[in-house]
Amino acid sequence: MQNSKNKVGILNIGSELLVGHTENTHAGYLSRELNAMGYSVYNHVSVGDNADRIYESLEFLARENDIIICTGGLGPTLDDISRNVVADFLNLKLIENKKIVEEMNEFFANHDVKFTKNNLSQAYFPEGAKILPNKRGTAAGFMVEKGDLTVICLPGPPRELKVVMEHLKPILDDGESKLYSKFIHIFGIGESHCAEKIDDIFNSQTDPSIGIYASPGLIKLRLSTMKKSEEEAEKVFKPVVDALKDRIGEYIFSYDGEGLSEKMFRLLREKHLKIAFAESCTGGLAAKSLTDFAGASEVFNLGIVTYSNQQKMDRLGVPKSILDEFGAVSEECVIAMNKGLYELSKADICVSISGVAGPDGGTEKTPVGTVKIGIKYKGENIVKSYSLIGDRAVVRENSVRRAFFAVIKLLS
Amino acid sequence: MQNSKNKVGILNIGSELLVGHTENTHAGYLSRELNAMGYSVYNHVSVGDNADRIYESLEFLARENDIIICTGGLGPTLDDISRNVVADFLNLKLIENKKIVEEMNEFFANHDVKFTKNNLSQAYFPEGAKILPNKRGTAAGFMVEKGDLTVICLPGPPRELKVVMEHLKPILDDGESKLYSKFIHIFGIGESHCAEKIDDIFNSQTDPSIGIYASPGLIKLRLSTMKKSEEEAEKVFKPVVDALKDRIGEYIFSYDGEGLSEKMFRLLREKHLKIAFAESCTGGLAAKSLTDFAGASEVFNLGIVTYSNQQKMDRLGVPKSILDEFGAVSEECVIAMNKGLYELSKADICVSISGVAGPDGGTEKTPVGTVKIGIKYKGENIVKSYSLIGDRAVVRENSVRRAFFAVIKLLS
Repeated sequence: MQNSKNKVGILNIGSELLVGHTENTHAGYLSRELNAMGYSVYNHVSVGDNADRIYESLEFLARENDIIICTGGLGPTLDDISRNVVADFLNLKLIENKKIVEEMNEFFANHDVKFTKNNLSQAYFPEGAKILPNKRGTAAGFMVEKGDLTVICLPGPPRELKVVMEHLKPILDDGESKLYSKFIHIFGIGESHCAEKIDDIFNSQTDPSIGIYASPGLIKLRLSTMKKSEEEAEKVFKPVVDALKDRIGEYIFSYDGEGLSEKMFRLLREKHLKIAFAESCTGGLAAKSLTDFAGASEVFNLGIVTYSNQQKMDRLGVPKSILDEFGAVSEECVIAMNKGLYELSKADICVSISGVAGPDGGTEKTPVGTVKIGIKYKGENIVKSYSLIGDRAVVRENSVRRAFFAVIKLLS
Repeated sequence: MQNSKNKVGILNIGSELLVGHTENTHAGYLSRELNAMGYSVYNHVSVGDNADRIYESLEFLARENDIIICTGGLGPTLDDISRNVVADFLNLKLIENKKIVEEMNEFFANHDVKFTKNNLSQAYFPEGAKILPNKRGTAAGFMVEKGDLTVICLPGPPRELKVVMEHLKPILDDGESKLYSKFIHIFGIGESHCAEKIDDIFNSQTDPSIGIYASPGLIKLRLSTMKKSEEEAEKVFKPVVDALKDRIGEYIFSYDGEGLSEKMFRLLREKHLKIAFAESCTGGLAAKSLTDFAGASEVFNLGIVTYSNQQKMDRLGVPKSILDEFGAVSEECVIAMNKGLYELSKADICVSISGVAGPDGGTEKTPVGTVKIGIKYKGENIVKSYSLIGDRAVVRENSVRRAFFAVIKLLS
């Protein structure tokens, strides 16, 4: 279907979206599905259960798009009016579908749910509509064409939407071109600094398209292209990837979307190394992030959260003199933490993290965001110092990311 | 402001939304904030970084709404065009703001980030715009009025959006009728079981409106009402809260939206108690969840992540005979872990967690989801056993929730 019709607008219908009590996950889900099949999604619109506003939204979306996909408003209650407004908008009659009435009777016989006369409204569809069956409920979807426009209505409950999509996909997917994407992960360079280095690459070409997404410390680049095979897509990606490698290669840690924790886990596993953490400001987040992965026991040796100076002395043997002279957030302290951690664990890699996550606890010498990361590997200590920006959660998250990035550098 | 201007349209700008690589959480967040201040949100529109389509979306939203709130496209890169299109749409010039240039220089001096000439574009605003400062980045927001229409632009990164909203809220909030909400947190009862017990309360009244949100192990009920004062709202809430207390009081742990970790943290602090954790399957998540809070050092003593049997023996002195006879996921093991943990920490409350988070590692005797939680308090050991349902992340999360809930029960 996409050869002739490629532009899609998505219309999510439901007042609950506009009060924010329900997050709109349908727009994202449908966009991913449609892009994967080679369609271009041009707009998302959410609107309440109001006939005039639904009509106006259809008008707006019909201006540019070939296909409009509506979700929601196919239920049996009085505020479910999508089928009526769509029929009105396309100037088509609603006609009862006998087969759906039969199926509905069967559904109610098999399930412990009460059949109400309201449900009968769900058996009406715009004339000429193709029915999209819904085995998880009584709200069947439908697809109807008039002139150049195709309108598709899908039920709102996520489980039902997904099962109806299974009927829609083979209709929409012609097996021709698809969207291929490549995710490149970049760490340790600011967004605008990164943009400056690669802006001309962005601007000098349109295929693949490039997206940039920044979160604290981490930048993701997305390259996308519409092609008939992965090989063709790779051909288009290659010159861009090569140019990126050339400009910012030292900051790229992944060319295939692999996350930091994931990559560290994989490297440790491949090299048969075990790691241990002594955490102060990150309070267990490093250990937690690694043990998120099944099979972590292969590479994870020990985690100790020594939040107080007393525990740093008692558990890790950090000398009181170091804490007195240099403080807990110091190069000396993380080296001493690592010494203690190694004595306890004998782990191949020992990582100690101490910092000021804030919002309190900063001093002139060690303001909020100061973080020291010590890594002990093959008898050597590396210490990294950072001044991180952000609130408590961001400083903690970013500290763990920095530590994992340093381990990855060491092992790659 | 809302007396004269009440209708709001939200425009989320960013091509990443249309490919579905980024979920649109801004529309929901802004809708909740705006509804809470008494505004009505009429439409959400998402559009890519394309000047014509942004312009058309502004036209569409301006037809019915008094206020349009845009998010995204205020960054320093070339695809950030929101300020230009808004100025064009309102037929206003973009003017450099000297104060913002100064602040930007300061921001870059204080942070270890490179200032680029791209950033200078971020100092331009439509003439007459009110600046909405952004202390977390260089993309300040702004608000500009022309004729009957107000357009507000906010930065896209969630952390920056939220900090800029703190400046916007007092401007939008006139203190008239507002949405008051009460969140009631329920733990340890299934969603349908809970619904069955309270369905008739839901159905028998419309003010307050009631929403139910379920996540693994945890159910949140939201009561909402539009009133002029908190007292008036409380009057409407009381009979519903009383009825809920009557029906499911034993499962309710919070009548004011306080989370589990938060409540445990508060109780520990009020009672001047310190807690220590020995974690196996949760791998640091318990320690991490408590140390998420600033001031955790007042109540947090020590965390040890002993993932392997060897570490359980070496660090906590769990006897090999217990591991051999009963296994690591046993009542006997968590009691032994607590014994060792107490010897190391002398903490007032010792919590040990051992379980099978999956997806592998389950046996017939201890299938995936089996979790043992030991709590040692005033010389006594309590052990709880659970069979949790869900994937690895859910089992880990739910294990920590169960442990914290047990501590709360003990201290309340």
